[in-house]
Amino acid sequence: MNRLKVLFHVNESGRWQIVLVNIANFLNDVGQGNADIEVVANGEAVSIFGNRCLLAGSEGQGASCGTTANGSLVEQMKKLSEMGVNFVACRNALKGQSIDEDSLPNFLTVVPAGITEIATKQAEGYAYIKP
Amino acid sequence: MNRLKVLFHVNESGRWQIVLVNIANFLNDVGQGNADIEVVANGEAVSIFGNRCLLAGSEGQGASCGTTANGSLVEQMKKLSEMGVNFVACRNALKGQSIDEDSLPNFLTVVPAGITEIATKQAEGYAYIKP
Amino acid sequence: MNRLKVLFHVNESGRWQIVLVNIANFLNDVGQGNADIEVVANGEAVSIFGNRCLLAGSEGQGASCGTTANGSLVEQMKKLSEMGVNFVACRNALKGQSIDEDSLPNFLTVVPAGITEIATKQAEGYAYIKP
Repeated sequence: MNRLKVLFHVNESGRWQIVLVNIANFLNDVGQGNADIEVVANGEAVSIFGNRCLLAGSEGQGASCGTTANGSLVEQMKKLSEMGVNFVACRNALKGQSIDEDSLPNFLTVVPAGITEIATKQAEGYAYIKP
Repeated sequence: MNRLKVLFHVNESGRWQIVLVNIANFLNDVGQGNADIEVVANGEAVSIFGNRCLLAGSEGQGASCGTTANGSLVEQMKKLSEMGVNFVACRNALKGQSIDEDSLPNFLTVVPAGITEIATKQAEGYAYIKP
Repeated sequence: MNRLKVLFHVNESGRWQIVLVNIANFLNDVGQGNADIEVVANGEAVSIFGNRCLLAGSEGQGASCGTTANGSLVEQMKKLSEMGVNFVACRNALKGQSIDEDSLPNFLTVVPAGITEIATKQAEGYAYIKP
C-alpha cells in the first residue's frame, strides 16, 4: 500500500481534543514517519490560538496558563508537530476572531483560505477526515 | 494545478451560515469562475427551504420576510448560485420535511438521493468538505 | 459510471439514526448490491455496542431490551449488514469505552485504528461521508 496521506478538518474548538487523540492513535498504528498528516483549522476552531494564556502555555512560559485545558491542547499540537504533523490555520478565520498572526505558535502555518487548502490537499490524494 | 472541484455537504440547518461564509471566502481566494462548487443539502438542513416566508424572502416578495435570518441565507444562496455555485437538495429529505418541490427556489436542483450525489461527485474528483 | 464505493464515518452516538437512514435511502436509490458501503465507527459512537441490553436486542434475546431505541438501531445495522453493508469499529475506541470485544454483535468487524481504516478506504477510491 502507498504511504497514507490524511487531512483532518477542524472548525469547532470543542473538537480539538478528539482530533488530537485521533492523530495519536493513527500515528501509533501506522508508526511515526509513515504517513503525511495535515490539520486544517478554520472557523471558530482557530479561537484556541487566540488566548495569550494558551500561547504562554504552548511556550511553557506560564505555569498557571500551561495547566489550562486549552494550553494543554496547544502543547499536544506542538508535540505532534515535532513528529511531522502539519498544523494549518485559515487567515480569514484568524481575522474573524481578531487574532494577531504575530502571536501564533511557531509550529502553525497560516494560509489565505482554509477551504482552498482542504480542496488542494484532497486533489493531491489526501484523505479527508472530519472528527 | 488543475481547476479545483469542491462539494460542500450540509445536513443541519444550523450550519448554513458557516457553509455560505466558507464558499464566499473560497471564491474570494481562487476567484469567481475558477472552481466548480456544489452544495448538497440533505437531512434536516433542507428545512430552510420549507418556510413560505423564506421563499418570499428569496424572491424579494416580502419585506417582513426578507429580513429574517433564514430569508437572508436563501438570498445569499441565490447570489452564490448566480456566481456559478450549484445548490442541490435531496428528495428524500424534502419529503421527510413535507416540503413541496413546487415551492422551492428556482436555483435549487432536486436529486433523488443526496448520498448518491455526494458519492458520485467524489468519484468525479470533487473534494468533500463538511463545514 | 463505475460502481459507487462509500464510507460513512460516525463518531457520535447521536448520529447513528441519521447514518442508517442515509444508507437505507442510498440503497433504495442505487439498488441493493450495486454499491460498496462501509461504516466506520470510532470515538464515542462505539458506545452503542457497549450495552448488554443492546446486544440482547440485536440478537433478539430480550423483548424488553429489543424495544429500546438503541437496540432498534443495532437491529437496523444487522439488517443492513445482511444486505452487504460492512460495519467496522475502532479498537482504540472500544477500549476507551471499556467494551469487551467478545460481547460485540457478530456483524461488526474490529480494526486496530479507525482513522487508518478511513484513510485506507479513501485511498482505495471510497467516497467519504460524515452524516
